[in-house]
Amino acid sequence: MSTLYEQLAARLGPKGFATDAETLAPFLTEWRGRYQGATPFLAMPASTEEVSDVVRLCAASGAAITPQGGNTGLVGGQIPDGEVLLSLKRMNRIRAVDPANDSLIAEAGVILSAVQNSARESDRLFPLSLASEGSATIGGLISTNAGGVHVLRYGMMRDLVLGIEAVLPDGRVFSGLKGLRKDNTGYDLKQLFIGAEGTLGVVTAACLKLFPRPRAHEVALVAVPSARAALDLLHRMKGATGAVAAFEIMNRLSVDLVVKNVADRRDPMPGAPFMVLIEFEAMNAAGLRDAIEGALAAAIDAGEAKNALIAENASQARGFWRIREDVSAGHRPEGAQVNHDVSVPVSQTPLFLERADAAMEASCPGARIVAFGHMGDGNFHYTAMQPVGMAPDQFPGEQLSQTVYTIADAMGGSISAEHGIGVARRADLARFKDPESIALMRAVKRALDPNNVMNPRALLP
Amino acid sequence: MSTLYEQLAARLGPKGFATDAETLAPFLTEWRGRYQGATPFLAMPASTEEVSDVVRLCAASGAAITPQGGNTGLVGGQIPDGEVLLSLKRMNRIRAVDPANDSLIAEAGVILSAVQNSARESDRLFPLSLASEGSATIGGLISTNAGGVHVLRYGMMRDLVLGIEAVLPDGRVFSGLKGLRKDNTGYDLKQLFIGAEGTLGVVTAACLKLFPRPRAHEVALVAVPSARAALDLLHRMKGATGAVAAFEIMNRLSVDLVVKNVADRRDPMPGAPFMVLIEFEAMNAAGLRDAIEGALAAAIDAGEAKNALIAENASQARGFWRIREDVSAGHRPEGAQVNHDVSVPVSQTPLFLERADAAMEASCPGARIVAFGHMGDGNFHYTAMQPVGMAPDQFPGEQLSQTVYTIADAMGGSISAEHGIGVARRADLARFKDPESIALMRAVKRALDPNNVMNPRALLP
Repeated sequence: MSTLYEQLAARLGPKGFATDAETLAPFLTEWRGRYQGATPFLAMPASTEEVSDVVRLCAASGAAITPQGGNTGLVGGQIPDGEVLLSLKRMNRIRAVDPANDSLIAEAGVILSAVQNSARESDRLFPLSLASEGSATIGGLISTNAGGVHVLRYGMMRDLVLGIEAVLPDGRVFSGLKGLRKDNTGYDLKQLFIGAEGTLGVVTAACLKLFPRPRAHEVALVAVPSARAALDLLHRMKGATGAVAAFEIMNRLSVDLVVKNVADRRDPMPGAPFMVLIEFEAMNAAGLRDAIEGALAAAIDAGEAKNALIAENASQARGFWRIREDVSAGHRPEGAQVNHDVSVPVSQTPLFLERADAAMEASCPGARIVAFGHMGDGNFHYTAMQPVGMAPDQFPGEQLSQTVYTIADAMGGSISAEHGIGVARRADLARFKDPESIALMRAVKRALDPNNVMNPRALLP
Repeated sequence: MSTLYEQLAARLGPKGFATDAETLAPFLTEWRGRYQGATPFLAMPASTEEVSDVVRLCAASGAAITPQGGNTGLVGGQIPDGEVLLSLKRMNRIRAVDPANDSLIAEAGVILSAVQNSARESDRLFPLSLASEGSATIGGLISTNAGGVHVLRYGMMRDLVLGIEAVLPDGRVFSGLKGLRKDNTGYDLKQLFIGAEGTLGVVTAACLKLFPRPRAHEVALVAVPSARAALDLLHRMKGATGAVAAFEIMNRLSVDLVVKNVADRRDPMPGAPFMVLIEFEAMNAAGLRDAIEGALAAAIDAGEAKNALIAENASQARGFWRIREDVSAGHRPEGAQVNHDVSVPVSQTPLFLERADAAMEASCPGARIVAFGHMGDGNFHYTAMQPVGMAPDQFPGEQLSQTVYTIADAMGGSISAEHGIGVARRADLARFKDPESIALMRAVKRALDPNNVMNPRALLP
């Protein structure tokens, strides 16, 4: 071991580091197998002071660092390629819960589901919810500004953070854990670290916003004739109930492929061009079910919906959600494909689907489209798949991706709504982000990390 | 006129600038008369291109700029002292309204009430609401991250901004007006300009979040025995109704002085140690009134409330609000006083009042306390006034202020919850902000405004 690694090992103790291939393996492999990393040293500090010392020692040696949370990212930003790997997993304490402030303080390595559970034990809700909630950690969720299914009601992770503690690229500690709703004493520095993908420092803890726990839940599945009808339905249901917590769309093929490729799934609404799953929640059950039923009946009268099912119990509600959750598993076995996580203004969602579907067909006749996701936030997971029978290596995936991005961009959209940039989308970012924004990003990066040691291969183009 | 001012005048045309004392007067006087400014040149650009050219010309000459919106700020950040004064008042167009995206784009000089009205015309709500809404402008409200009475439900101005257009200190234009709910393509640059008090650039336009318009409103006035009871009541009402939009507290003296000093006001709840005004709103009226009445009855049973009035109509609701709105006018005539805009974690609000009240009495026996404000956000407007009969110049105001700040700070609070720093609180900021945060703020300032030409006397200590 070189001097740096000896120093790090001495500081961290035997539990706090690893260099053997077996221990390193799960940290270096991205869960879908798309990225395989390498690191000379895995640091696993257990406290903010240890993180600070690791970063300071690395900075003194000019060694770059890749921070890692639960290793659930989709764009490779958490996988080192020669950098020191800094795992926050051992920083897994919930330091404090303050129900009367609707807040709790969690360290970076706490798993999302543990935060959800801790909130529930205090009769509170932490609303962030996404597929990887059993593995994703608070530090990673903050560093990637995670989204999920409840953004419509509660916002992104950015909106759920009251305060942050972070280790800066030179090892200093930014202590911004105040649990305040209002604090206009200068720049809101915590914003710098949210969504920065570890390029400006290492988030070590956060003060998170909690909410009263909703007492009433309803889930509806609605067959709609078109994306435009779904948009009208969205605003009708928001206006009529004030209780829409999720509004998820699935096109025909997404549901067909769940039925085809996932065991024990059936289609509750065969033939519907689009299916919408709507989740409602309220503190006060009185009137909620009536408001939902009345609004859905009016939507059917107005031609926005063909029919609607409201779950009669929690188990049926889970069944509705399972269709939506299985969409990814449904189309994964269908051959060559390109996946996108794009957003457009909510008002432009129908137009986006029209234009993108037409462009895919024009570029690759017979291409199959799975379009689903968080329509209430303007966010589609949009997948173009090879036509049936095409040889996978003939599928013009990269060309189709650029077309999807160009269409979203032209509508004032984003090429990465919630998954981030990582290493996977850097070239696309350079293509689609305006030069002034990139220049500003570089100026901020230089100001905080002049030696470019924090996750140097991620995010910035 | 020197060359710079000749260049600016030529670029802006006769309507776009002024240098005569009469035109300048209203721009140079703070509305309470606490600050009197001076400027060699008032620039009144009417477009982003004109702002850009003004800033570029000033930068080339090394001339500093003070941006100004509606001139309603309380901390002097908008008043020049020799800088070029850049008023955004002529940039007063609402560029676009997109109801199906729940958004609109307003230029910096649009007055808040005009945005509220525009939203209403599209059957939408723009929820920011504060005393100066008839004069305050969007650019100023963003630059100061304004708060107001609906933060509890909708957040600060920061939470209501989807996108920003800003002119950078060198004249380049940051075009970040996308109306997206989700966009994880790099640092969230708009955050830099929100609450930066014009020190990092000039906000010229913003894309703002709209909401469905609530159909049901209720306002209750509740007599509570203590601040601790008020805190319990807050959580009870949030949990029972999910509809609390404002939760405002007034101590005994605030109400007494409204009755004493404001014409035609009476005390609806004589003797109550504290009065709480709660505003509720919901999309769906069904069950709301019942839920409120049930929860208030339970609060009375639990000893959290002594009695409660629910407004029977809009006019009575206005009457309840008027007491709260007149608190400032009520105590202003009461001699020497120091006002504070502090916040603490919501859970700490009762303890803050206990400690602060005791410390005021210890330092200045007989000091009178008006404590009121946004308790639901942990934000008190806390005023200490001279004892009756004391000579005003004997009142140890500055000493009491430092005590109030020290108490809030020790509880993890803020010395400026919503009013900002401006020039008034710079010395206090230097005293109470931690050195790492100040160093980070300076690093950001240097990165964006290396020549320190944007509002150079404001905010940074």
